[in-house]
Amino acid sequence: VFPEMALPLWKNFLQTTKERILQQRRLSLYNGSHGYEEELIKKKLQQFAGGSINLCKEDNGIGILTLNNPKLMNAFTGTMMLELQERITELEHWKDGKGLIIYGAGNTFCSGSDLNAVREISNSKDGMNMCMFMQNTLTRLMRLPLISVALVQGKAFGGGAELTTACDFRLMTPGSEIRFVHKHMGLVPGWGGAARLVRIIGSGAALQLLSGVVRVDPEKALRLGFSEETLSSSDETRALEEARAWLSQYTEGPASVIQAVKKVVTAGRELPLEAALRTEKDIFGTVWGAPANLQALVRRPKHK
Amino acid sequence: VFPEMALPLWKNFLQTTKERILQQRRLSLYNGSHGYEEELIKKKLQQFAGGSINLCKEDNGIGILTLNNPKLMNAFTGTMMLELQERITELEHWKDGKGLIIYGAGNTFCSGSDLNAVREISNSKDGMNMCMFMQNTLTRLMRLPLISVALVQGKAFGGGAELTTACDFRLMTPGSEIRFVHKHMGLVPGWGGAARLVRIIGSGAALQLLSGVVRVDPEKALRLGFSEETLSSSDETRALEEARAWLSQYTEGPASVIQAVKKVVTAGRELPLEAALRTEKDIFGTVWGAPANLQALVRRPKHK
Amino acid sequence: VFPEMALPLWKNFLQTTKERILQQRRLSLYNGSHGYEEELIKKKLQQFAGGSINLCKEDNGIGILTLNNPKLMNAFTGTMMLELQERITELEHWKDGKGLIIYGAGNTFCSGSDLNAVREISNSKDGMNMCMFMQNTLTRLMRLPLISVALVQGKAFGGGAELTTACDFRLMTPGSEIRFVHKHMGLVPGWGGAARLVRIIGSGAALQLLSGVVRVDPEKALRLGFSEETLSSSDETRALEEARAWLSQYTEGPASVIQAVKKVVTAGRELPLEAALRTEKDIFGTVWGAPANLQALVRRPKHK
Repeated sequence: VFPEMALPLWKNFLQTTKERILQQRRLSLYNGSHGYEEELIKKKLQQFAGGSINLCKEDNGIGILTLNNPKLMNAFTGTMMLELQERITELEHWKDGKGLIIYGAGNTFCSGSDLNAVREISNSKDGMNMCMFMQNTLTRLMRLPLISVALVQGKAFGGGAELTTACDFRLMTPGSEIRFVHKHMGLVPGWGGAARLVRIIGSGAALQLLSGVVRVDPEKALRLGFSEETLSSSDETRALEEARAWLSQYTEGPASVIQAVKKVVTAGRELPLEAALRTEKDIFGTVWGAPANLQALVRRPKHK
Repeated sequence: VFPEMALPLWKNFLQTTKERILQQRRLSLYNGSHGYEEELIKKKLQQFAGGSINLCKEDNGIGILTLNNPKLMNAFTGTMMLELQERITELEHWKDGKGLIIYGAGNTFCSGSDLNAVREISNSKDGMNMCMFMQNTLTRLMRLPLISVALVQGKAFGGGAELTTACDFRLMTPGSEIRFVHKHMGLVPGWGGAARLVRIIGSGAALQLLSGVVRVDPEKALRLGFSEETLSSSDETRALEEARAWLSQYTEGPASVIQAVKKVVTAGRELPLEAALRTEKDIFGTVWGAPANLQALVRRPKHK
Repeated sequence: VFPEMALPLWKNFLQTTKERILQQRRLSLYNGSHGYEEELIKKKLQQFAGGSINLCKEDNGIGILTLNNPKLMNAFTGTMMLELQERITELEHWKDGKGLIIYGAGNTFCSGSDLNAVREISNSKDGMNMCMFMQNTLTRLMRLPLISVALVQGKAFGGGAELTTACDFRLMTPGSEIRFVHKHMGLVPGWGGAARLVRIIGSGAALQLLSGVVRVDPEKALRLGFSEETLSSSDETRALEEARAWLSQYTEGPASVIQAVKKVVTAGRELPLEAALRTEKDIFGTVWGAPANLQALVRRPKHK
């Protein structure tokens, strides 16, 4: 029934999982063949300056990424979008990295896009390019081989709410809230927030949050499985300290192994089961018999 | 490794997501190329008459679909299957629609198929055609750009239980129950109920409900995440009023935006992550810079 | 946009779901075309002897599979891996089978691989072959048309924890624990445990268990949805009796129908929604109008 030519195509497709996955991590979702004009949108975004995205790579293998535009509740200006892309590239090349915490300056997370910039790119072509630019960046963030945490203080609104879904975990401070306010702006998520939210909390709950513009406080987030823990302090320094301690439960050990753990889970959540199993096999191949594995075997006594 | 010809095929496949999704919504799962004989089964179903499916499109954008065959606990006769298909087509063309409530006449939901009709089509060919007819209709129901609620009073048995899984949400009245009784008839779900149930409550719980013919009362449904809320009244008029109020939390705002929200969530739950992200981008493109978006931007004050 | 030749390829691919699924159940994930050398690894595994895998097929249609190597906490020797493959083949051919319970001898489940064997195959080629051998076997276990339960007493560590994820359900005795200890060995799961765990408890919880080497006791397992019930006894005979009673809630009725139920749920959890719907239709076709269905129709009174 299956045409002779189709079977080898399909087999080859499945067999090249390894190459494909490795490429996927490097490659972005969109390029020129999708009508995406990266240079054009970068030039445009350059015109809406303000704020910054700062990265601090700590010796313990935990990176701290700060959204820094406090007078606009850390709304993304054009240059902040550009800087986020650069920081993600830097994190992709961090060999000793194990974890990542994203938080906002001034005791609040992020209020989405800077509306002054949005007004200037409200035409269809700019909008689609901006959308593809941000999906590319956040897809690469989601696939980083680092265990990532969004530390939510204050408000995470619109694009800020979407950004939290690109992290593996969400920790919230007392009094904080996450809210997909897109409907109030006549919009739906476009940075991948809907697709990722469905995977985190299920399609029913996602439909409620988006269509009801529901205010998600720490208690509701815990109930939905949207956040892992409510921290005890809403003071920035102490909340960051708590988030670091929480994350360090999962980042003990060699970076190569932590990164491999994140990769098998990424495959498990992105790919259909058969493809995920093949990818798990490939990733297993990178740690089996590698130094950390051989050292562990030496430590274990032989039985007779 | 990947043959030269396969790569462009695959790329094209992904790039045509937009066209494909738009088509999918219009197109059914099965057509003649699957051995499906629509005219034949429609003629057959026409012979088993009784009951009706009624649709009332309210001014608030909420449709009320009534399963009406109370002397058989709203079991589906052949003509009711045909009428359901017609009503879904009508809903697909409802530009101002935002929500949908499905309920059964006479304080009960639906007891499945009319066994008198089933006995007459118990041969393999008729059975498969009926199965494809109903899967086509319920797949189109599931993909309607409306937020849909099954209001379960009394019993939702067999095909009635399957119908509830084609809605986004389930609300149950006190004393009601949902039960996949297929095993007792020597059957498994065939209207797509198993595939959709696994996505709503997980594969383990789905296996228990199907293989154990488990009675799901409102408390168990809440625990499983199978229903969203237990209403306070089991009186038809009041239960319908409660369901309308519940749904209206999510249908406030322009129909174009509500429909876009439902579409991004549909993509998120049906498609692999990469395809869901691309589709989200396409749907975002339909609302970005559209009237509802521009009006919202005007309402927001510019910052300096 | 879609090249003329690609559309029929894709259509054919979807249309052959039935053949494909039937094959999948028989076929393994890996064969020679993936660089998998089955005869080579079987010869190697033969050299690491010890313990056994025993199967008892009871008259009630429930199979009892025992991991039997108590002096090593039922760690898998090479010959046990080979025997597991043989037992799965036997279960695939069991026409009257309905359920399966897997447990370990000596009041403990399984501590993973025998490290003496692991040391001898710590080179890359042997490791990959062993990984593919075990993924093939556990994928076939997962797809058995039997409702399967891992009865966890004592410890389920490493590969033992992975084995539990290939079952439909997990029942734990008081004081038992499941723990993915791979990180402590410088490893990640390679027997498919990560891909399957993500599907059972979600990607966030899976990332925590793997990266934190978290001890999962019966209470935590229930909370995570990783186990269905905590049994009351940790005595082997009585725990096995409790597991049999729990499973028998779901295995009452004809084997043909129970097996069809398991198959629709397997399709629902493995395949994208459209493919799962088509497969459900095919499986429905195997029970519609079959003896168990016709007998049930006869038992029901006709209405007038």
